[in-house]
Amino acid sequence: MKNLETDILIIGAGPAGMVAGMTAVENNPDKSVLIIKAYEKNQVPCGIPYVFGKTLGTVEKNAMLCGGGAIADMIKKVIDTVESVDIENKIAKAINHTIKFDKLIFATGSVPFVHKHFEEGIKLENVFSIHKEYHKVEALKNYLENREKVIVIGDGFIGVEMAMELQSGGKDVTIVGGRHILGGSFDEDMAIEAEEIMVKSGIKMALGQHAKCITEKNGIASGIELIDGTTLDAEVIILATGYEPNTTLAKEAGLKLARYNGIWVNEFMRTKHKDIFAVGDCCGRRDFITKEPSKVMLASTSSAEARVAGRSLYKIKHMKDFNGTIAIFSTMIGNRVFASAGVTEKRAIQENIDYITGISKGINRHPKTIPDASKQSVKLIAMRDSGEIIGGQVIGDKEAGEIVNIIGLAIESKLTLHSLISLQIATQPLLTSAPTTYPIVMAAQIALNSTK
Amino acid sequence: MKNLETDILIIGAGPAGMVAGMTAVENNPDKSVLIIKAYEKNQVPCGIPYVFGKTLGTVEKNAMLCGGGAIADMIKKVIDTVESVDIENKIAKAINHTIKFDKLIFATGSVPFVHKHFEEGIKLENVFSIHKEYHKVEALKNYLENREKVIVIGDGFIGVEMAMELQSGGKDVTIVGGRHILGGSFDEDMAIEAEEIMVKSGIKMALGQHAKCITEKNGIASGIELIDGTTLDAEVIILATGYEPNTTLAKEAGLKLARYNGIWVNEFMRTKHKDIFAVGDCCGRRDFITKEPSKVMLASTSSAEARVAGRSLYKIKHMKDFNGTIAIFSTMIGNRVFASAGVTEKRAIQENIDYITGISKGINRHPKTIPDASKQSVKLIAMRDSGEIIGGQVIGDKEAGEIVNIIGLAIESKLTLHSLISLQIATQPLLTSAPTTYPIVMAAQIALNSTK
Repeated sequence: MKNLETDILIIGAGPAGMVAGMTAVENNPDKSVLIIKAYEKNQVPCGIPYVFGKTLGTVEKNAMLCGGGAIADMIKKVIDTVESVDIENKIAKAINHTIKFDKLIFATGSVPFVHKHFEEGIKLENVFSIHKEYHKVEALKNYLENREKVIVIGDGFIGVEMAMELQSGGKDVTIVGGRHILGGSFDEDMAIEAEEIMVKSGIKMALGQHAKCITEKNGIASGIELIDGTTLDAEVIILATGYEPNTTLAKEAGLKLARYNGIWVNEFMRTKHKDIFAVGDCCGRRDFITKEPSKVMLASTSSAEARVAGRSLYKIKHMKDFNGTIAIFSTMIGNRVFASAGVTEKRAIQENIDYITGISKGINRHPKTIPDASKQSVKLIAMRDSGEIIGGQVIGDKEAGEIVNIIGLAIESKLTLHSLISLQIATQPLLTSAPTTYPIVMAAQIALNSTK
Repeated sequence: MKNLETDILIIGAGPAGMVAGMTAVENNPDKSVLIIKAYEKNQVPCGIPYVFGKTLGTVEKNAMLCGGGAIADMIKKVIDTVESVDIENKIAKAINHTIKFDKLIFATGSVPFVHKHFEEGIKLENVFSIHKEYHKVEALKNYLENREKVIVIGDGFIGVEMAMELQSGGKDVTIVGGRHILGGSFDEDMAIEAEEIMVKSGIKMALGQHAKCITEKNGIASGIELIDGTTLDAEVIILATGYEPNTTLAKEAGLKLARYNGIWVNEFMRTKHKDIFAVGDCCGRRDFITKEPSKVMLASTSSAEARVAGRSLYKIKHMKDFNGTIAIFSTMIGNRVFASAGVTEKRAIQENIDYITGISKGINRHPKTIPDASKQSVKLIAMRDSGEIIGGQVIGDKEAGEIVNIIGLAIESKLTLHSLISLQIATQPLLTSAPTTYPIVMAAQIALNSTK
């Protein structure tokens, strides 16, 4: 047992932990910063699907470097697993280390969520959740070798990306999900475009009803049974059914949990204890619109939280500028990008929001004869009365991955349709739609016209 | 002479005229809208450089369709040239038409600016300004055929794009400009990257001193003479030396001019006469930061002005949300995008602004092993005291053309470095940088750290 002491201790070296560590170093040059993590090597979380197909192809190509650069190198790193935290005496106990700290940041992330329907099935050797640990990703990749028939349960971003990558790597893939894929982030009119691409690429869709259970034969999973009794065979079953905060350690330490079992934090990412902070997927979050608990997990939001905490460990330095989590995502399906920010129309209806929408369908270059021109759609969702932007969806070429960030910023800045129609933007023949038909502006105008 | 009558008359069918017309139709369904324009076919203004090289290759591919779509088709179009406007009696006189109107929108655009040094030279058959009329673009393209040696005078976006396209089409091109190309939009540290690409592609650079005059031999231009006496030979000389508002007609009609001879307009794009509006390059503009006269001409800003005017012809319906023009541009040089918004560091110094900067250099995908990953740099310029963002520059792959629009929105929304460091953004391996190192956030953080 080795005894260590540090001013600032961070548990976890995912995106949130690393950003918190680097920000802590930058803002507290006279303090020592130590990160404790369970394994030497990590995986880039959102890169995991791409190790299974043609894009990256190997687990090693998705390794995350914890360090590199002068600032990261000023963080002391310890490889060990923390087993308990004594908050009163400010001591963390790991298997081989005891670490005394002054300030502590939980960045313990999230673990795969397994629905009770699959609690038995997940124990079988050919049923996998998508863990984020390097060796577990490697184990799944090795297991998939020489196996053909795969079922992916889950229609969210990770499920869709896994399905597409496995298919590109030659597997026979069936995706099982709700009425439409990516239904949490896209309305039906946008989602069907994604489904068409997936079907055309050869992926089988079992949408509209959920999996009831995993079926077993000779000690391994033989497939799944759907709610209506249909059975589907598979050699490997992958659960892409979301994640939940990894808060066992925090709970056992006596910290208050809240909001889907995330660690309770205030606006400065501070827990109920003034020297203990939590950032990233392990902490509770509020929805941007309703301010109710939110399940959204995003590495970018985690990084933002980590920056806020890293700056405010010793003195609260500035107010966090976001009051709630905007669900803001993008992905690529085939050669098209699907991106979404804020609330969908479907969710606006569920929340009983009096909303209007505008959809612009155009071309991402101008004139449309530019060689790589392709279709581009933007849908905006706004409050009918105030015109405040509350959501947006984009389908287009790669730049759509940044267009959604313009919409995200509009939501965060509480901009209205009125301000968007006189938005000043850079347009260029080879890079964007025409200045006269810039899709965010057009969608805003169409939404405004709909109120007449 | 044909007598016509319309509720709303628009002179000019460039981006500003067309958007004003369509917005007028949408907002005034009971009013007649008529656009009068000099020629049947127009050119997409910012697409013009691309007809001269490999990208479009023909003038026809850059034709702008004035119409198409239900709304555009509700605008009556007349091909004729307006020669005078009688403001008191509300009559426009064209060569073959007399048009009585109730409301008038000037959208007469801009014409090439010719410096007095070149007033004689421009009369020669092989010296050209870059006009925007279809037949004039065609004439220049035809003249360039079978001619090799071209000098482009002007280091702005049009000059650089013309040089690159002509070079890609096999010409021997020299560009003549200031100390650095694109010096109005980029600081030296960013501009030199563009210069390196241009030099590598075979373009000759004559930077750091301006052209004194065009030299003549046997009745045609033989080349140019620089300030230091050096002479450069050429078969064709192209002036890409900017544009000035086309306001002869407005001036003769008695409208007040202001700000670099643009038509004076208030915040609703209304001239001193309550029924007469002006939009686009023909109207005077204010700079976003200093509120002083601005020479910036942008089709996107023109479109925004046109939307404001089109909505407020009969009743002022909403306040224009931008109080001044942000210079916001993007272009592609080789396979790299260069984009800029707001003020450069150089201009901040000229304006005596107490500023700070942050530069982030990263990769546009994550992990960096993603096949199409490439370098991405973002520079932010902010007020030291308030942290308010006043400018930004981006170098990257095609998505940089939209990243600059995030920065533009941050400037327009008066966001600060503090709000940018907790920006919520969509990041995705195939589409963006890592969530932990998103370049706008990193640049903001680096700028903030610089104040410590």
